[in-house]
Amino acid sequence: MTALPESEVDVLIIGAGPAGLMLALWLARLGVKTRIVDKRTSKVYSGQADGFQVRSLEILDSFGITERVWKEANHMLEVSFWNPDEGGTIRRSARAANTIPGLSRFTESVLHQGRIEQFFLDAIRASYASDSDALHVERMVIPTSLEIDEAKAEDPDAHPVTVTLRHLTEEEATPTQMLSNLSDGIFRSNLADDDVGDILERSEGREARDEVARAKYVVGCDGAHSWTRKTLGKDFEMKGETTDAIWGVMDIVPITDFPNDPRAADIRSRTVIHSTSGALMIIPRENRLVRLYIQLKEVSAGGGRVDRSQITPDFIFKSAQKIFGPYKLEYHYCDWWTAYQIGQRTGDHFSKLDRVFLAGDAVHTHSPKAGQGMNVSMQDSYNLGWKIGLACKGVLPRHVLSTYELERKKIAKDLIAFDGKFSKLFTGRPAKDIQSETGVSDDEFQKAFHTSRMFTTGVGVNYQPTVLVAREPEETDDDDDDDYGLEKSAAKSTPSLATNCEVGRRFPSFKVVRQADGRLWELHQKLPSDGRFRLVVFGGDISQGSQRDSVNALGAWLSSYLPGLPTITLSPGSDPHGGSVKFKTERDPSVVDVLLVHSAPRDEVEVLRDVHEAYHPFDSKLGWDYDKVFVDGETYYEEPQMAYEKYGVDRARGAVVGLRPDGYVGLVTSLDHGGQDEVQKWFDGIFQRT
Amino acid sequence: MTALPESEVDVLIIGAGPAGLMLALWLARLGVKTRIVDKRTSKVYSGQADGFQVRSLEILDSFGITERVWKEANHMLEVSFWNPDEGGTIRRSARAANTIPGLSRFTESVLHQGRIEQFFLDAIRASYASDSDALHVERMVIPTSLEIDEAKAEDPDAHPVTVTLRHLTEEEATPTQMLSNLSDGIFRSNLADDDVGDILERSEGREARDEVARAKYVVGCDGAHSWTRKTLGKDFEMKGETTDAIWGVMDIVPITDFPNDPRAADIRSRTVIHSTSGALMIIPRENRLVRLYIQLKEVSAGGGRVDRSQITPDFIFKSAQKIFGPYKLEYHYCDWWTAYQIGQRTGDHFSKLDRVFLAGDAVHTHSPKAGQGMNVSMQDSYNLGWKIGLACKGVLPRHVLSTYELERKKIAKDLIAFDGKFSKLFTGRPAKDIQSETGVSDDEFQKAFHTSRMFTTGVGVNYQPTVLVAREPEETDDDDDDDYGLEKSAAKSTPSLATNCEVGRRFPSFKVVRQADGRLWELHQKLPSDGRFRLVVFGGDISQGSQRDSVNALGAWLSSYLPGLPTITLSPGSDPHGGSVKFKTERDPSVVDVLLVHSAPRDEVEVLRDVHEAYHPFDSKLGWDYDKVFVDGETYYEEPQMAYEKYGVDRARGAVVGLRPDGYVGLVTSLDHGGQDEVQKWFDGIFQRT
Repeated sequence: MTALPESEVDVLIIGAGPAGLMLALWLARLGVKTRIVDKRTSKVYSGQADGFQVRSLEILDSFGITERVWKEANHMLEVSFWNPDEGGTIRRSARAANTIPGLSRFTESVLHQGRIEQFFLDAIRASYASDSDALHVERMVIPTSLEIDEAKAEDPDAHPVTVTLRHLTEEEATPTQMLSNLSDGIFRSNLADDDVGDILERSEGREARDEVARAKYVVGCDGAHSWTRKTLGKDFEMKGETTDAIWGVMDIVPITDFPNDPRAADIRSRTVIHSTSGALMIIPRENRLVRLYIQLKEVSAGGGRVDRSQITPDFIFKSAQKIFGPYKLEYHYCDWWTAYQIGQRTGDHFSKLDRVFLAGDAVHTHSPKAGQGMNVSMQDSYNLGWKIGLACKGVLPRHVLSTYELERKKIAKDLIAFDGKFSKLFTGRPAKDIQSETGVSDDEFQKAFHTSRMFTTGVGVNYQPTVLVAREPEETDDDDDDDYGLEKSAAKSTPSLATNCEVGRRFPSFKVVRQADGRLWELHQKLPSDGRFRLVVFGGDISQGSQRDSVNALGAWLSSYLPGLPTITLSPGSDPHGGSVKFKTERDPSVVDVLLVHSAPRDEVEVLRDVHEAYHPFDSKLGWDYDKVFVDGETYYEEPQMAYEKYGVDRARGAVVGLRPDGYVGLVTSLDHGGQDEVQKWFDGIFQRT
Repeated sequence: MTALPESEVDVLIIGAGPAGLMLALWLARLGVKTRIVDKRTSKVYSGQADGFQVRSLEILDSFGITERVWKEANHMLEVSFWNPDEGGTIRRSARAANTIPGLSRFTESVLHQGRIEQFFLDAIRASYASDSDALHVERMVIPTSLEIDEAKAEDPDAHPVTVTLRHLTEEEATPTQMLSNLSDGIFRSNLADDDVGDILERSEGREARDEVARAKYVVGCDGAHSWTRKTLGKDFEMKGETTDAIWGVMDIVPITDFPNDPRAADIRSRTVIHSTSGALMIIPRENRLVRLYIQLKEVSAGGGRVDRSQITPDFIFKSAQKIFGPYKLEYHYCDWWTAYQIGQRTGDHFSKLDRVFLAGDAVHTHSPKAGQGMNVSMQDSYNLGWKIGLACKGVLPRHVLSTYELERKKIAKDLIAFDGKFSKLFTGRPAKDIQSETGVSDDEFQKAFHTSRMFTTGVGVNYQPTVLVAREPEETDDDDDDDYGLEKSAAKSTPSLATNCEVGRRFPSFKVVRQADGRLWELHQKLPSDGRFRLVVFGGDISQGSQRDSVNALGAWLSSYLPGLPTITLSPGSDPHGGSVKFKTERDPSVVDVLLVHSAPRDEVEVLRDVHEAYHPFDSKLGWDYDKVFVDGETYYEEPQMAYEKYGVDRARGAVVGLRPDGYVGLVTSLDHGGQDEVQKWFDGIFQRT
């Protein structure tokens, strides 16, 4: 056998679903040399995941993608609950807002997975100056071996992970189930067998099409049957429960008279039906589609394997019709269908030596009804992407990579615990357990629903104290014994200065006015995912001399401190809300971006006269930058936004909020000299090692 | 000589600038067989027109394009005025909102012409099921002869216009100025010579590449030097004034300390400077660009031709620097520049036999400073597109085509009158004529400015009484003697029923709640440009029995009346805010679309139970349509919108508003039987000829 071709790459991503594509997008934006391979012949075209939670929409917006989701998706604004009345006939017992009002500028939305995969692919391409330079998904490629040179694991310049990749023919890459003419509804479900073994067997003896990739980092985003996870060995096995409950899923254009009851059309609301024939959830979709999650009472895993041949669209639909009775339900178009077995599983380890990582379904699986899978998966790799990317670029030390497992394993555990409870609410519970018999929600249910909404939005995420997050452990943190012994930040936050910018949580978005031209912006739009940390300087009332002096003293200090930090190269797509980077700045910007949001009357402030250059940097080719100073004030066109009140910042004295590149709050401190010290301690703990 | 190849087409568009592309998009959406040819080798890539007025943005949004403009453009929200102080030094004397607050959900925005041309091309392609079917611009094609068979002009099935088209080589199509190495800044300016003669001369003897197109309609969108206009003869000559004033234009990234005065950055506001060295206007652009319009006092047409060799970027910029003093102005990047001579001209005729039409610069030219040219041009062909398209499809009788000239000639006349006044405000007027010496705007100026803003937004357009517009002539209509003797509608509007839906003007957009799912929509988003007329039924409080009975009686009448009207085929892109048409309806919809907007409490209305099927049509494949009933009421997420009050409709009794396919109000009437009669008279006058 001749030697295989070899090549080096910074990051190799295995799997091009939403988790893998999110990671690829991050690395494309950061200009990191990356490959992404996938065993399938093409992206998904229908069905699969469909729920976009508000935190995901905020994240996607930081890459400029959300506007496409937001336009095509159905916005799912209301939730209805139907239960049997005393005679056993279903009737609506409650209706509520589906997303907590005021939590975000977005609400839960529904669009099939194929579209977001397309949007990711487009955004990745737009991150490069030309199409020929761009990162492309290498399809029909499967890894066959993975080894880590442990001796080199801590060498930041090494490529210690060796992966053999096999290039498949189209026939080899086609799922066995499709080749054998089985219906395709189940082939990506957890009822389907893993087909990697089949693929490898069929491609045996074709080593001539193998190659070897040496990578700094490998990330397995390869789904519930993850080859990467299995290859890492027994320590990485997933643990958890599998129940006997089987549910069917159908995406149809329904023809129905549901409801004939007063009020709006529940076929176009998120609706939970508990009937005497089982449970069902309605998810109204784009394109007049409706997804139905249907309890299949007449099949059961029964402790063993399910007879998959029994599960047909016709069988699933008949179950739905029974639950819908006395209302009629028919359909002409079915876009997609599947079935799955309820269970919750996660692994103990999300990384090996911080060189090989697992993300998404590869490391946590659960039932799909809460619309969590794709969201938590994308948020996994959103958490990981900037850390790996900045480590590859030498901006971050390797030890920061350990925060990935710390931060995301807790989320995965919370997720499967939540899903266990949530699934039980659907399967087998009598209606009166979650609804009072009068049809009015009782306090306990309202509380449980509200709690679950906070969790499912993704906004509830609260990362633990590390060098990245300068906060005290909370008494409610239940994993205190599980902090990995990671180093903490030497900086100390003063949470009372910005009561709605909690350290460890995502920085919220409210509207502020650009000083230079009076345009109202969501502040998130000025915090794109470009790899930069940020200081949001709430300058307070800088029309007052002493307050202005504090802000400018901080600016003067930043002007001397920041040039000692690394710089970062911005890619073409890095400022999706600010226009393309048509004209080149004279030098790369600092890895720390600075924004000023003041509360003085807009017409009492003149940027060039009153505000330190740190807040409006000068470039010899582009002139002054007018996109860094904002005001919480009046405009000609909209009501005052009262952003200071919404952020919980005092209008007179202000605050400084430090953000990680993923938009999570890492530090809250004051504008004075003490605050400067905390900022320095925070950044020194992240960027510089003693 | 052998016979040339011949082919038939419904519409031939000459010129693929914004006017031609708007027309092509309309015809693509309507499924009309169309060709569009352009003499140039490619679309525009920088500079040229850059202003988007709010009515244009509303129109582009009806095709789903505005979101791309809105994202990339600079939103120009404020206007500042600078004048000399007593010592002759310029200082800011006033600042105001640039767009009238509350007029539209959009504000004036600035983006270069090349982008909107790209967006048009993308939207045209998206109107077809496949790329190979799609309408493409045929570039490097020039017409060489045009004849109308007048005997067949009124035959709706005839193709009476014969045009010979010549396919050019790239060399032939390249402008002479470029070939001769002259700077390209002026080649599309009104200082440049027409190059059609040159092109024809250079391509002489190449008749082998000629072909003959027989068209039902030909539209000349071929700019200020319009070949189409010249070919139509002496009657079509443009008339008007040409002044001696020359202005320069530069798109630069400025490096400047302007202003050093308190308040915001006027280099990022629309700013008018009158200094002792001349006048200048700042237009802040996308991508850190700024456009400067600069009076060139030292050159003059002087009654004859300008010496073009004198006008260089350096010369123009030195003039700008003088006006800017004492502030400094430099630049490193220049994206584009040009110069032009101020003048205002328009023609007496916009069409010949309603078979050959002129639109845009081909029939009105003026100075660019008010950002009107591209907007009025696009609005010309927006007015024409649905009329030609529906005539080709046999939906409208040919006589409706005469309304194009009636409606748009008045706009062109208003435009050149406005531009004459507006240009004089800039050139040579002492500052105190438009500003009081204290720097506070006087009443007269405020009034003039307000009036001009209403005109420049495009929202002020008010079409005359015809079969399309059931209104009385206004006493202020100054063209009463010039109504072409066109037939009027037999229907009579009752304007008091909807005081902010003026007959003849564009229907405004306010937010309403979709009954089925509680989602808030701009009502305009439910009025896409798909070729349909619309009845917006403001149903009033339909929780009251008598009111509900009126609404449902109207619905019952519509259910019997509408099937007698033509149907219309919707193209893939026809509902840009409603998702793609993935699933096929069983039959084409009526040319009249019906929407219900009621004011009853949302939870007291159940669509299937309470509302006639006319407002939620049933389709045997798709079920009930839940996208037709809206309510002016509360949601979980936003404050009540009070749409009835904004539309000027009584919350109890409601009104019926009839809209043309371009969104202009054609009828306002009542919900009762009298209203039905008016609706019938209005439609009978449009669709059926006795």
